[in-house]
Amino acid sequence: MTNRQIELFVPAITPFKPDLSIDTERFVAHARALMAAGAHGLAPFGTTSEANSLSVAERMAALEALIDAGIDPGQLIPGTGCCNAEDTITLSSHATRMGCRGVLMLPPFYYKGVSDDGVFDAFAQVIDAVGPNLCVYLYHIPQMSGVPITLPLIERLIARYGGQIAGLKDSSGKWENTKAVIKAFPQIDTYSASESMIPQNVATGGAGCISASLNVNPRGIRALLDGLNGPDQAALHEQVSAVRSIFEGLPLIPAIKAAVAEQNNDPEYARVRPPFVAMGDEHKDAVAEAVRIAGPQGAA
Amino acid sequence: MTNRQIELFVPAITPFKPDLSIDTERFVAHARALMAAGAHGLAPFGTTSEANSLSVAERMAALEALIDAGIDPGQLIPGTGCCNAEDTITLSSHATRMGCRGVLMLPPFYYKGVSDDGVFDAFAQVIDAVGPNLCVYLYHIPQMSGVPITLPLIERLIARYGGQIAGLKDSSGKWENTKAVIKAFPQIDTYSASESMIPQNVATGGAGCISASLNVNPRGIRALLDGLNGPDQAALHEQVSAVRSIFEGLPLIPAIKAAVAEQNNDPEYARVRPPFVAMGDEHKDAVAEAVRIAGPQGAA
Repeated sequence: MTNRQIELFVPAITPFKPDLSIDTERFVAHARALMAAGAHGLAPFGTTSEANSLSVAERMAALEALIDAGIDPGQLIPGTGCCNAEDTITLSSHATRMGCRGVLMLPPFYYKGVSDDGVFDAFAQVIDAVGPNLCVYLYHIPQMSGVPITLPLIERLIARYGGQIAGLKDSSGKWENTKAVIKAFPQIDTYSASESMIPQNVATGGAGCISASLNVNPRGIRALLDGLNGPDQAALHEQVSAVRSIFEGLPLIPAIKAAVAEQNNDPEYARVRPPFVAMGDEHKDAVAEAVRIAGPQGAA
Repeated sequence: MTNRQIELFVPAITPFKPDLSIDTERFVAHARALMAAGAHGLAPFGTTSEANSLSVAERMAALEALIDAGIDPGQLIPGTGCCNAEDTITLSSHATRMGCRGVLMLPPFYYKGVSDDGVFDAFAQVIDAVGPNLCVYLYHIPQMSGVPITLPLIERLIARYGGQIAGLKDSSGKWENTKAVIKAFPQIDTYSASESMIPQNVATGGAGCISASLNVNPRGIRALLDGLNGPDQAALHEQVSAVRSIFEGLPLIPAIKAAVAEQNNDPEYARVRPPFVAMGDEHKDAVAEAVRIAGPQGAA
């Protein structure tokens, strides 16, 4: 575990133009700013990215735009899990062909109350179809997907696919679950979805964090990671918590986009697709306060 | 309300070949059998149809196969609601061009806890894109979608789109909700998702039923509808309840497919896509009992 890389991957927001098509220029600009601010990589097309409001063709084009812009595909873990296997296979094959480090894969998430056997079959169907070059980061976010990635399921997937099961993102918010995954499967990279859990995650042998807040506060969170157990740890933790606690009181995705807009002094970043609605003016001050603490996006 | 047509639409199962591609031949054969058995129409690509495990291209090809086989598109209400607007628009435009009576539309269902404003925007985006020929049947199934279709939302949609909001399927299982929709919006066709509610639905001014059990027991349920308030009502209700209560104790979709397989003496119908697993032998007797009560599919 001492050799594990501890990393921050950003579930980058997806900016939209007035016609709600993807604003590729701002998508790339934001991605570059995040990497410049200390992110180790990006996990685009996750929940925060409104990926499930994007089509397969849009996701592939936007991923290619990132790579064309010079972002190393080895630093990219795009989300690819859709309800139907064909779309998941298309996206996962594409990301693998593009040389991405891996893919962050939701289970099929429409049907609820399904068995581990069925979810295993769903992952197996995709991995078998994409082939041995695919690396899968399992995406556990039961409050959205309704389909948990249980420990017995992880065990079966590793038994069948070995190193192709590269990691897991635990968005459940339950540290006890993250800890159990890290302890049971030290061979995979387990990320917390909240920067508030970075100290425990790292101390227990986890691999770091993939959090929405990284869109707004990449420098603060990177400083916390770099300063763990150092003399400034308390102050670093306080900065990170202050930003996070503001977002906890707001509709997360619209608020993150509003904050990025504020940081860039560019309201275009704030636009969302339905079923979200853009952040209302009533939360303007809260967003501004988060940005004041996090600093402008380009700040050194 | 006295002029309302009372109808049964079947959320027809989607049979699969050994390679899990759609078995169009059996799909069409089953559809024809259902119409011959007294269904007023079909609501293919609903929850029971495993529609959310099908790709957009597969859904369009299968719909065309039904129509090519001679099923009147005026008797078809295919499901078209996907997570992303582009896919929903593609499917809804296609169904409208094919002359379908309407489409059964889920709200975008990945993101949970979204506002009525956001869900309204999502429906509006699709209806505006498809145009005035689209007829929408709203699909309320919060236990799967996580996104309810509330009464204020229905009211706003009708206020904006009038007769384009043609109806609603209430799969919540909560009769109080169905009743409230029927009472508040007598101008739309409100279907219960359980044949057990047909008497109340019809008595209150509803439009009938769209139920998974119709795949197995179309004649029994049609007989109940035709015999409402007649001398045999109690016996008819008992038959329908006997079949239904068996399925309530089983994983619904695999059990329905196993029963159709048994009725056709053709195990090919029993195959499911992940995340479902085929019905186990431990439920064989229960399925056989449901089929015994419902009768073989071709029975007069």
